[in-house]
Amino acid sequence: MHTQLLPLFLIPALLTSTLAQNEHSSPRDVRSSVEQVLRNQQDAWNRHDLDSFMAGYRNSKDLTFFSGAQRTSGWQGALDRYRKNYQNDGKEMGRLEFRALQIEPLGDNAAFVRGEYHLTMSDGKTPHGLFTLIFRRFPEGWKIVHDHTAAAE
Amino acid sequence: MHTQLLPLFLIPALLTSTLAQNEHSSPRDVRSSVEQVLRNQQDAWNRHDLDSFMAGYRNSKDLTFFSGAQRTSGWQGALDRYRKNYQNDGKEMGRLEFRALQIEPLGDNAAFVRGEYHLTMSDGKTPHGLFTLIFRRFPEGWKIVHDHTAAAE
Repeated sequence: MHTQLLPLFLIPALLTSTLAQNEHSSPRDVRSSVEQVLRNQQDAWNRHDLDSFMAGYRNSKDLTFFSGAQRTSGWQGALDRYRKNYQNDGKEMGRLEFRALQIEPLGDNAAFVRGEYHLTMSDGKTPHGLFTLIFRRFPEGWKIVHDHTAAAE
Repeated sequence: MHTQLLPLFLIPALLTSTLAQNEHSSPRDVRSSVEQVLRNQQDAWNRHDLDSFMAGYRNSKDLTFFSGAQRTSGWQGALDRYRKNYQNDGKEMGRLEFRALQIEPLGDNAAFVRGEYHLTMSDGKTPHGLFTLIFRRFPEGWKIVHDHTAAAE
């Protein structure tokens, strides 16, 4: 049995390591947390509250946004792009619906999402397309760190 | 000190858990493995060896391929799409170069990649665009499980 004895000072470290592992989220928890971020974004968009919508994105210069083959860098750049496309003169935000969400956990602290966006504008037009999102978990919650969105032609 | 004592039968389990953690790859290893898959894909494409190119993708019906706002499902679907667009009558594969690769590990068993593709065709045209790839680690190696590619207009 002596070969199984550990120095006592090591045991707290092992316990901490094991407890930290047990704090990890289940895939169901990850899906639920990420879906909540997207539901909050959809609700914020439909209140025309772009600031709350942007809370779903990591507020960092490392955030990237690919709109088709156009690259935008940083949270501020993404916000500026949304303002230009949806709040400038003659633009509108319309009504947003996310559909066909497939949320796939990648370990405990990341996930990716495939989905569709559907907008309904006041003139009856319905711009829509596909997106791929990368989420990471931060102390302040789950945030999008990369968004690749492509509009249907 | 007794509060720090563990039942001896628990210690091997704790040790195993800790050792397993230490076997995980470093972010540098992940980047290097994923980059190798992409280099192999580029080389295969430039040999016009579509089968070897496709080895970078997870051979599964769960593979998804978003080309702009067009969704293709499954490995076979992705292969059929490449054949149609690059090997049909009047089509060519051209010379492929991946550029500006940003490989970001997401835990030990997943990563995502932002990058650009640049093709050079025999008529001098240079189709290009941006992509987002999701990689997962499988027993047979790192494989793309989702590809979102958007051609510049």
